[in-house]
Amino acid sequence: MNTHYVSEAVVKRLPMYYRYLTNLEEQGITRISSRELSEIMGLTASQIRQDINSFGGFGQQGFGYLVAELKKKIGEVLGLEREYHMVVVGAGNIGQAVAHYKGFSDIGFHVKRMFDIGPQPGDEDVFPIEDLADYLAQNSVDIGVITTPVESAQEVCDILCKGGVKGIWNFAPIDLQTPLGVAANHVHLSDSLLVLSYHCRDLAMHNKIIP
Amino acid sequence: MNTHYVSEAVVKRLPMYYRYLTNLEEQGITRISSRELSEIMGLTASQIRQDINSFGGFGQQGFGYLVAELKKKIGEVLGLEREYHMVVVGAGNIGQAVAHYKGFSDIGFHVKRMFDIGPQPGDEDVFPIEDLADYLAQNSVDIGVITTPVESAQEVCDILCKGGVKGIWNFAPIDLQTPLGVAANHVHLSDSLLVLSYHCRDLAMHNKIIP
Repeated sequence: MNTHYVSEAVVKRLPMYYRYLTNLEEQGITRISSRELSEIMGLTASQIRQDINSFGGFGQQGFGYLVAELKKKIGEVLGLEREYHMVVVGAGNIGQAVAHYKGFSDIGFHVKRMFDIGPQPGDEDVFPIEDLADYLAQNSVDIGVITTPVESAQEVCDILCKGGVKGIWNFAPIDLQTPLGVAANHVHLSDSLLVLSYHCRDLAMHNKIIP
Repeated sequence: MNTHYVSEAVVKRLPMYYRYLTNLEEQGITRISSRELSEIMGLTASQIRQDINSFGGFGQQGFGYLVAELKKKIGEVLGLEREYHMVVVGAGNIGQAVAHYKGFSDIGFHVKRMFDIGPQPGDEDVFPIEDLADYLAQNSVDIGVITTPVESAQEVCDILCKGGVKGIWNFAPIDLQTPLGVAANHVHLSDSLLVLSYHCRDLAMHNKIIP
């Protein structure tokens, strides 16, 4: 188990390492040097060694990293050695996308139930929001996903936290208040779009390629 | 216009500045110090001053930043002084969410058309993928959004790039190849989920609050 202090900056890069290592594993690559990793990931080799050292990783000079071992280690740091039960509140497009994306269950995140205000008849997968508190009382849920309109997000967050979730994954464009002991992560899709528009503009101005 | 070199790390933080400054403006706050910004954004005041200096921002010792001016400046750096035309390819849940999210058009990103394989009759908003190349030839499109399954993503990307888009916003879990002169940004939703599971695990282990 990881007992090192991992900085927030490294934590944010760990999922990327995990993705690349998964790809390497799928390609049958069993060993990789920090230099090779740096070429495919676009980080410097020294940054990579420093990141991996920070959580007690174990490359060897001139040998590199064993892909499966490093992936397992990073998975442990990220908390992927277990399964997570999730509920999705808000059955709009984003909610449906999260609930049905196979990539999440592949890494141990399972959406057990979706809730919404007045689900449509025939929409068997979606349960009325009034049942959420009871469901949380009777089932162990680790993560609540909030994909409601911004107006309902804090109220839904309160119900989820009171119901014992340990994490809130929020897609509503609002900074939610969560009690001590509940982690929260916010997805701001437009941030990613603005980084893209920066690069479009930068390319147009300098007519250069992105590093 | 910005002629400074802005590091990729700063570029990635700029949308967050833009969001917070927009919120401050909506609250009627006209002036803010780097220390006050640091408290609401969770960065250090010196980091904030350094970030803003890097693109030629203009705070004054003991006076702080004018919210509207700083927001305008950051908007310029991000390329938000103009409008962008977008097409969405892949009319599944994520594609529909992107096409209908009002927050994007509010900041100048307009989805002009959605394409998919064999759109359903009655689905007036979605056009057949066979028409994409013609549409691009006849209309100026800045950004192509790819929300197709992974198998089709590169082919769609090629059509978009050949059709003259300047940016690819990709939601398919694959590293796309784009020609020189086309920017690309990839959204990996599961990265955000893994950062959350790290924090859930970290809280469980240390029973501490997130910094």
